[in-house]
Parts: sequence; C-alpha cells; structure tokens
Amino acid sequence: MSWTLTPDDLPDLARGAALLGTGGGGDPYIGRLMVEQAMREHGPVTVLDPHDPADLADEAFVIATAMMGAPTVMIEKIPRGEEPVLALRRLEAHLGRTADATIPMECGGINSMIPLLVAARTGLPVIDADGMGRAFPELQMETFGVYGVAGSPMVVAGDHGESVLIDTGADNHRMEYLARGTAIRMGGSALIAEYPMSGHDVRRTAIPHTLTLALRLGRAIREARERLHDPVSAIAETLAPTLYRHLRVLFAGKVTDVERRTVDGFARGSARFAAFDGGAELHTVFQNETLVATVDGETVAVVPDLICVLEAESGEPITTEALRYGQRVVVVGISTPDMMRTPEALAVFGPACFGLDVPFVPVERDRATDRV
Amino acid sequence: MSWTLTPDDLPDLARGAALLGTGGGGDPYIGRLMVEQAMREHGPVTVLDPHDPADLADEAFVIATAMMGAPTVMIEKIPRGEEPVLALRRLEAHLGRTADATIPMECGGINSMIPLLVAARTGLPVIDADGMGRAFPELQMETFGVYGVAGSPMVVAGDHGESVLIDTGADNHRMEYLARGTAIRMGGSALIAEYPMSGHDVRRTAIPHTLTLALRLGRAIREARERLHDPVSAIAETLAPTLYRHLRVLFAGKVTDVERRTVDGFARGSARFAAFDGGAELHTVFQNETLVATVDGETVAVVPDLICVLEAESGEPITTEALRYGQRVVVVGISTPDMMRTPEALAVFGPACFGLDVPFVPVERDRATDRV
Repeated sequence: MSWTLTPDDLPDLARGAALLGTGGGGDPYIGRLMVEQAMREHGPVTVLDPHDPADLADEAFVIATAMMGAPTVMIEKIPRGEEPVLALRRLEAHLGRTADATIPMECGGINSMIPLLVAARTGLPVIDADGMGRAFPELQMETFGVYGVAGSPMVVAGDHGESVLIDTGADNHRMEYLARGTAIRMGGSALIAEYPMSGHDVRRTAIPHTLTLALRLGRAIREARERLHDPVSAIAETLAPTLYRHLRVLFAGKVTDVERRTVDGFARGSARFAAFDGGAELHTVFQNETLVATVDGETVAVVPDLICVLEAESGEPITTEALRYGQRVVVVGISTPDMMRTPEALAVFGPACFGLDVPFVPVERDRATDRV
Repeated sequence: MSWTLTPDDLPDLARGAALLGTGGGGDPYIGRLMVEQAMREHGPVTVLDPHDPADLADEAFVIATAMMGAPTVMIEKIPRGEEPVLALRRLEAHLGRTADATIPMECGGINSMIPLLVAARTGLPVIDADGMGRAFPELQMETFGVYGVAGSPMVVAGDHGESVLIDTGADNHRMEYLARGTAIRMGGSALIAEYPMSGHDVRRTAIPHTLTLALRLGRAIREARERLHDPVSAIAETLAPTLYRHLRVLFAGKVTDVERRTVDGFARGSARFAAFDGGAELHTVFQNETLVATVDGETVAVVPDLICVLEAESGEPITTEALRYGQRVVVVGISTPDMMRTPEALAVFGPACFGLDVPFVPVERDRATDRV
C-alpha cells in the first residue's frame, strides 16, 4: 500500500541512505536540503509499494532519475534542482510517453533523494525500490540491467539547460561510458533519467522496499544514539528480518591514512585503519563506493556486499570523500539480497568488474571454517 | 540550376577539397572511396544551387552531415558508412520532420564527401554550399552559427549503432564541447548530423558554390599537371572570379621539422620549412587545419584565410597529418569570402579563437605598405 513521505522523514532517510551508500553515492545531505525545499513548495511525496498491483500496474511506465558523477565533485557542485526534471521530460518527449512514477536507480547516498526531488516537483509518485540495493559507481551496475532492462535511451542534463540523449540499444556498458564522458564535460556531475521500463519490469528486476529500509536504518541509528544504545546492534536488528540479513563487524579502529583522487569522473583511492587494540590493520579500496576490505592481507568483505564505515560513537555513516586521519570508526559488512549474488549479477558488479582479483565470498561466511 | 555529380567527378573534387581543407578536414581519399562505392550501388547524386529557389525553397528543411574527429584518427578508423545516415535519421525522428536535402558543414577535406555519401545512400540531394568555406576544427566555427542558426539539436553516431543527441539550445560552443567529448569516447572520430535549418537560412548563412569550387580547383590542378603548367597559377586563375579572389605564394622550400600529437580529440602541432634558396624559415601551427604561417618571425597569413601546403612539383595538397621531413612544397595563402571576415565571423573563428595572439590581416594586404 502506498504511503506518504514527509519532510520529517528526511533526516533519518538520509542517514540510512548514507549507510547503504557504502561510502559512496554522494553525501545525501545536500539532496536532503533540496527535497525539503521542494516539499515545502509542492507538498509531500507519495511512495508506492512495488509489490502491490494497486499501487503499480504491470503496464505502468516508470523512469529512474538520479545524479551521476564523482562524490568529490558533487559535494561542491550543487544542482539547481531543475536538471533531473529536465532529464525526465526530455526522455518522455523522446519516447512519446509520460511517466507514471519515478524510481531510484540506487538507494544509497544522494540518489535516494533525487527521485524524491523529481517527485515533489512533478507530483509523480516514487517507487519504494531501486536498481542497486546499495550504491555502485557505474550506470550498468543495476539489477534492472542484470535482469534484462535496457538502460538507454537515457538523458543526461547539465546546469545550463543543456541535455544529451544517449541511445546504445541494449549495451548498458557503452551507455555508461558515453554518459560518463558527458558528465565529465558537464563539470564532473550531471543529472540523469534512464532505464525506462514497465511496472512489471520494476517488480521483476528491482530490489524492493529499499526506501523503507533506509528510513528504518536511519531511524534505528538515531534512536540508539538517543538512548545511548549501541548503534551497530540497532542496525543489525533492523536488517535481520529484511533481504539484507547478516551484519558482521569487520574492524574497530582509527583512520591512519587516506589516499584519494578524482580521475576519469570518479573518486578513487584507498584508506588504512589501525585497530584500537594495536596490531591489526584494515585496508579499504574505493571507486566512489568502498569495494573491498582487507585485514592484515586477508579479504574480509568485497562487492557487492556492503562495506560501511561508521563513526564509532554515533554510528553515523562516513562517506569516502569525508574520511579523515584520526577518525574513530567501526567498519561493518552487510550481506546483499540474493538476487544481487547470482552469477548474472556478479558478472555485472562482482569483484572482477572493478578489477579486483579476489573471488566473491559472502560476508556472512566464516572464512576459517568456510561456513555461514 | 541543379546538376548531377558522378563518380568521374570525385577524384577532382577530392583534390580540390583537400586544398580547401588547408591541411585539415581529414584526407578526402577515404571519403571518396566510400562515395564511389555508394554511387555504384545507388546511382549519382543531385546537387542543388542554393541561389536557385527552384532548387531550394525557402521552407525546405536541410540538415548538415559530417565526420568529426582528429584527422590522425580518421585516416585509420574508417567509418562503416551507415553512421551519417543513422545520425540524420535520428535527428529527423527527434524533430519529427524529414530532411529535403543535406549540406556539407565544411567544404574542405573528408567533409566534402560525407554529405555525398548520405545523399547517395538516401536519395536526398546535396546543396552546393557549406558552413565553413574551408575546414575548421570545431563545430561552432560555422557561418551557419555566425549568422544565427543553432547547431543543436544535433546527433553524434558511432560505429556500433549507438547515437547521442545533444541539445544545448543556441549555445554552439557548448554543443561542440559535449560532441567532442562524445567523439573522443567513440574512439576519436564519429559521424554527425547538425544545424537543422530552412532553405532560407541556407541562402542567408552558407558560403555558396563551394562544391563547384572544389571540383574546379581539383580539375585545374590535374589539368595543369597533365600539361606541365604551373599548378599554382592554375589555382590562382580558378579562384580569381570567385568569392576567394586572392592567392599569394607565401613560401617555397622543404619540410625540416614536424611536431604532431593527438590531444583533446584534435591533431595539434607545428611544422618548419627551409627556403630552397636558404636563409628564410617558415613556421606553421595547426589544430587539424593550418592556423598561422610565420616567415622569419613575421606573420604572413592567419585564420580564417586559407594556408595551403602543396607538393612543389604536382600541386597536390598535403594534409597536416601527411607532412613529412624533406617534402618539397609551395605554401600559398588564399583570401576567404567577405562574409567570413566580418567582426561577427572573426569573433567565432578569428585568430583569438585559436589562442593566437596576432590580429587578422587579410592575406592580400601588402604588409610593407599595408595596402592591398
């Protein structure tokens, strides 16, 4: 059944989305402010349950909206707010069909917010689901695409009212490559409308209820903090009954080194952490999102499972572009839904897709006994 | 009145277009082979006189077709031949209107040939006129744009059947920047359809009769060669009654140095030449096309006037990517039509637009007396 998202929900949603962003996806803070403003002007947003045919008909027409670019750029280059609506409208005009709803392409980071901005400005409902179940750095890394939906035609819109419509047929890799080049020339970030599809395709290919999940995770962290409970336990309890069943604490320590550069339109780099009790060292590598975590040379978690760096005291998620020397953190691994771990899915966003020479091992598996 | 272009015309046309390409525009040889093949399959091409309303009605709908990219890439990455038709068709579909004719965006280099390829494959006529009156490296450097026609919406098509539609409103600089980025990601060259406009706009903004001019120039060079006449005199005599009135021999000597690199999607570099009689040295700078010629430190010709490097014996034009140590050459300057020398035109493709810190001085002016 549909429900209404109000401005009061946004701080919790942003916090939960930052967690699901696994360090990337862009800091949702700016997006949250934009959605708040749009809701003040246009009213709250209706959220549709993708599993309820009364909310989302099979033949409904859905377009994903999002921001793309390097998070290091996105925290400085604020959208005007009209760009994602322009992208949506241009794609509608090209296809000769108006959208019945919009949907997040990813539930992590700022892209939890952009579809809400579009929804508030246009009056369209937003679907409680997404195409990544977290955040990923590239546009072909979508469950939509894994399960057969073409990402293109898509539209990239810049802040000068310019737009670029990309049509690569069923080749979502080529779409990403051309869109990335466009986003770079638009200043390092841009707003997009992509993966036009039916309600049936949404039900078949999206990770369901991830807006609800982000909202609950953000709320759980806040309430734990207010009650002086352990936020990591609160996160684990929130996840347990969902598709993201398992949480494992990978490391507790402080940041000793961060190396970060903005190249090819991405924020790439790595970070090192020393354990509070001395001895062990954690190493992470990121391309916008944290991709792999290694403790003393042994891989403890890898994409597509989630690797989340949290402030040790507050449980607040820390994005890769905000990592700083000396921060005291807890690093957790979270299992992704089963449909993100199939061979087809791992062929699109498994470790090899990021140039990592490690196999995917579910984060919940005990590496000593090789058992869950 | 319209006339018919046949395969027999193509070698002369290609030679003349190479001359008007001022070293750039891509070697027309490959384009010529493609047009020959298309004409063998589909028949000859009808060429329209832009000054004859019976050929081109005011309300006719015209789309320019072309190749864009670094000539250093274009000589190795041969188009399949379908790309410019795909670009045209995608732009037609976007605008909801089919073209009545195509037109070269530039008359120099391979872009004299691409519209003929489109014409042969589609049955459309091609207009005897163009938007550069020579070759220039960038898409905003068009008389179409100088006199108020928007270059976008435009389409860039690659050799995998993919297309990118760019809409930057009236901002032709931004269109060029986004299209260049796309062409780079398509491998360094791509085929385009741009500057959709009316027959009235063609008459108002295009340089007329430049296909005819290229054909006559190529024929004059060949015939001079066959009769053992001086090809430079033949070129000068062909130009005298046209909009390109003046030819001046700038230098005769041999190539002593060429520095060339493919950067930002362009072939950039410079060349040095030593006079046959020793002493004087010519220096040229190019961005795809030759931009400026300096003899012993004094500028003797600069864009938008044409600077053409010819083989000394045969009068065959040499493109910048084919310049080699030891070649014996004559370098000539040719005056551009008056509508390419107005303040509006120089603001778009004058020396400052290429970062050159020299004023535009017409090549026909005697620099000693400052008189023509």
